[in-house]
Amino acid sequence: MAETGLYVGRFQPFHLGHLEVVKYILEKVDRVVIAIGSAQYSHTLENPFTAGERLTMSKLALDETGISPERYLLLPITDLNVHKLWVAHVVSQTPAFQMVFSNDPLTVTLFQEAGFRVEAVPFYSRQVYSATEIRKRMMSNQDWSSLVPRSVASFIREIKGEKRLQYLSGSDKTSKI
Amino acid sequence: MAETGLYVGRFQPFHLGHLEVVKYILEKVDRVVIAIGSAQYSHTLENPFTAGERLTMSKLALDETGISPERYLLLPITDLNVHKLWVAHVVSQTPAFQMVFSNDPLTVTLFQEAGFRVEAVPFYSRQVYSATEIRKRMMSNQDWSSLVPRSVASFIREIKGEKRLQYLSGSDKTSKI
Amino acid sequence: MAETGLYVGRFQPFHLGHLEVVKYILEKVDRVVIAIGSAQYSHTLENPFTAGERLTMSKLALDETGISPERYLLLPITDLNVHKLWVAHVVSQTPAFQMVFSNDPLTVTLFQEAGFRVEAVPFYSRQVYSATEIRKRMMSNQDWSSLVPRSVASFIREIKGEKRLQYLSGSDKTSKI
Amino acid sequence: MAETGLYVGRFQPFHLGHLEVVKYILEKVDRVVIAIGSAQYSHTLENPFTAGERLTMSKLALDETGISPERYLLLPITDLNVHKLWVAHVVSQTPAFQMVFSNDPLTVTLFQEAGFRVEAVPFYSRQVYSATEIRKRMMSNQDWSSLVPRSVASFIREIKGEKRLQYLSGSDKTSKI
Amino acid sequence: MAETGLYVGRFQPFHLGHLEVVKYILEKVDRVVIAIGSAQYSHTLENPFTAGERLTMSKLALDETGISPERYLLLPITDLNVHKLWVAHVVSQTPAFQMVFSNDPLTVTLFQEAGFRVEAVPFYSRQVYSATEIRKRMMSNQDWSSLVPRSVASFIREIKGEKRLQYLSGSDKTSKI
Amino acid sequence: MAETGLYVGRFQPFHLGHLEVVKYILEKVDRVVIAIGSAQYSHTLENPFTAGERLTMSKLALDETGISPERYLLLPITDLNVHKLWVAHVVSQTPAFQMVFSNDPLTVTLFQEAGFRVEAVPFYSRQVYSATEIRKRMMSNQDWSSLVPRSVASFIREIKGEKRLQYLSGSDKTSKI
Repeated sequence: MAETGLYVGRFQPFHLGHLEVVKYILEKVDRVVIAIGSAQYSHTLENPFTAGERLTMSKLALDETGISPERYLLLPITDLNVHKLWVAHVVSQTPAFQMVFSNDPLTVTLFQEAGFRVEAVPFYSRQVYSATEIRKRMMSNQDWSSLVPRSVASFIREIKGEKRLQYLSGSDKTSKI
Repeated sequence: MAETGLYVGRFQPFHLGHLEVVKYILEKVDRVVIAIGSAQYSHTLENPFTAGERLTMSKLALDETGISPERYLLLPITDLNVHKLWVAHVVSQTPAFQMVFSNDPLTVTLFQEAGFRVEAVPFYSRQVYSATEIRKRMMSNQDWSSLVPRSVASFIREIKGEKRLQYLSGSDKTSKI
Repeated sequence: MAETGLYVGRFQPFHLGHLEVVKYILEKVDRVVIAIGSAQYSHTLENPFTAGERLTMSKLALDETGISPERYLLLPITDLNVHKLWVAHVVSQTPAFQMVFSNDPLTVTLFQEAGFRVEAVPFYSRQVYSATEIRKRMMSNQDWSSLVPRSVASFIREIKGEKRLQYLSGSDKTSKI
Repeated sequence: MAETGLYVGRFQPFHLGHLEVVKYILEKVDRVVIAIGSAQYSHTLENPFTAGERLTMSKLALDETGISPERYLLLPITDLNVHKLWVAHVVSQTPAFQMVFSNDPLTVTLFQEAGFRVEAVPFYSRQVYSATEIRKRMMSNQDWSSLVPRSVASFIREIKGEKRLQYLSGSDKTSKI
Repeated sequence: MAETGLYVGRFQPFHLGHLEVVKYILEKVDRVVIAIGSAQYSHTLENPFTAGERLTMSKLALDETGISPERYLLLPITDLNVHKLWVAHVVSQTPAFQMVFSNDPLTVTLFQEAGFRVEAVPFYSRQVYSATEIRKRMMSNQDWSSLVPRSVASFIREIKGEKRLQYLSGSDKTSKI
Repeated sequence: MAETGLYVGRFQPFHLGHLEVVKYILEKVDRVVIAIGSAQYSHTLENPFTAGERLTMSKLALDETGISPERYLLLPITDLNVHKLWVAHVVSQTPAFQMVFSNDPLTVTLFQEAGFRVEAVPFYSRQVYSATEIRKRMMSNQDWSSLVPRSVASFIREIKGEKRLQYLSGSDKTSKI
């Protein structure tokens, strides 16, 4: 039977490092459920984009790369903030999966305690392919678009994502509001 | 630009009527976001299946019918029970859509009040292709499998869905438990 | 010191009976806090109107009657559904009050158990001046506007409240939708 | 190693049938965790008593019967209304247990699906030793005290529980309020 | 038709700067809905006062200044922490408004994205007329009362607000508890 | 009548200082309700253990010390994060108590405002008998077991609590995951 993996991330925003991870996972398993975590949050410095926007970005990136939609499923997963219920929550909202791919200590701990097989994923130039780095560059008007797939960069520009982040950070002091 | 429609249902379970609606919508728009509503509920007589199980059923049905995964996106949407926030909630969790397909009075009212274009969908033999009818038949051990796509029927058997419903309804009095 | 009373209702919609109660209370105390309960609910047959709409109706009715805004405060109060916390919730959201006016058994019980002075209010032609009766008439296209202050009737027409209720009840079968 | 069982109930109120079940369980296992379910609810006809009141009743009943406090643990468990998370919730709030005692179809289904050993408990004169029957008698002023341990009856009288139920049911029409 | 503005603040506490903003808004529009945000929070260093206490303060300040109650409506609004639903939440709890007055980046962003007209408000000696400054002074026993309307200062003293803040901050180490 | 005290703590983990406080309280009152606060949280650096694990630890510590189970009741209490409702919440979930033992400014303030008698508890070598200190030692692989009762230390080892904390803190960088 085909094996399915789970990959959870916040994708704020979806970048080239995420893309490499998806490719890596698809070498290991037949299909991957890509869960967009913290789905209820948006419009903060840590979580600027809505789940719908992040879902759109991720889809654009996978399409651009030519990964077949037969091989993945994208869906939003809310945070519960009650950690011990989170695995049961994820399981209830997704199709069956046989293993979990993650480097996040909390995700790893919770799925391992629940009896799941968990595997680490390699990092791809972690310093730059990092959502934190990208958001920092967006806020300070530095180049960030080279760190995300081209279609993601143009979607973020379309929804004025850079501006949203700058404005929320209060850094855009010249704005007339 | 390609047009996207939204189709919200509970899909308890996904049946042949739902399939006809998806086909109908795909004649009208390029892509459809299929939102599995009341996603947090399961294990009741009204909502026996989890969102993950319903997502799996829906995917199987669309695959069986040969509808390309390029044309739809399946995702869970929780109920808020605070109706006036629900449209904003759906919008925040989904990619952009330009119109809504629904016959449900509440869904129609809320999306219309929020300024969305809403269109009714035709009913396909409403008396039989109804999830309520299917659940009733499951509980009373009558034929229900002819009302759902073959792959859905076999998935429901695999997860012992019929038994779950019967047991929850208390009708399976011969059980030893 | 001036004495303040609390009057809690759902006001779905605000009618002539409610108005009489407010007048009655203002004979007993100097000021009244009018709390619009179940504030998060709307768009159901029991709770068709939002808290904002009900607040508007109530304000219109009090203005029409010439009751001075110095003498009342209108505000929304959500339901908690955890009854034993509800008094603390109301107290935390309102200015200080010294007594409670209510005929609702749950409200009376909870405030009495919390040590508040609770007084019943007289009913004014309870059969007709009843929100349930008014909603029933709205759904069946019978005269309801004589049961509410004139300004309330015209506000409900303006927001198409009658239609919303009929449509939600599924009774408006001639609709094209 | 000593074996621990879980027994979940609403105990509205704790009656002689519950007491027999506890005794039965303590013949099978060394210790029992008695979880008072729906802990957040009170002041309704289905759930008149708070979790704290039900905990007090249960403790009084077990003390009266001479069951050693070494052998049980009493604690409140809130309902989540999201059934598929409930087992994880119970597990996170209680000491480890090895088996579950229940006749409730939902409890049985959820714990079995989570891989727990579940055992039915015998019914003791189910028609009379039933919390529903007791609440019905309380509301209609019939004898109910013979169906609960003596200490429970006197505690209910002390907190005026019978009156609370009657008043909430609106049956106490002679009340002045 | 008369135009209504929305002004959202936490008012922890209501100070002279807030009062100037209300006057400014009332020069621009006919009426203002003053929404007391983060209404569920209290008893923290950031949010020491309950919504009810803040409502009382605001009312006292407006009365003291002679602003007619015909021109404003004061009400509590809870935080949702799910930002993308917040505008819909505010709209559902308030009478209709045509524009929003705010300098808060998040409020501005959310209302603008929802299509509302948003206008900045002037700051009045921002360094001193700031709730953060006032709370800091309260905690360190410095003069704060000159920064709030006289009636607000005496209300805060009446409810021992200064002491509450000091005690919560743990700075009042000499307290016997 | 016997007097009951309330003692609320997070017990992350239960240590020798907590044990001294329980003994101290039992010199003052006949029985103590020990409420394990923040019950919904676990798997964070501040709250590593589940309520069920903390309940188990506390029970082991009290048993080891020979404190009779007749004299205490252990139960989990969730945080509401809406402080002004918390006292009502605690009261609804516990048997009646006549006084509260606490040094926590928030707990003291809330119970005092609600009219309860509150008493401070002595600190026992506060620098070392502190849960914060113990968690810090666990994370940095220093001796912590001398600060907790022996049975608690061995339970924490059994559930690999030290490792969980280290892993969650990201300090265990040599782990293969």
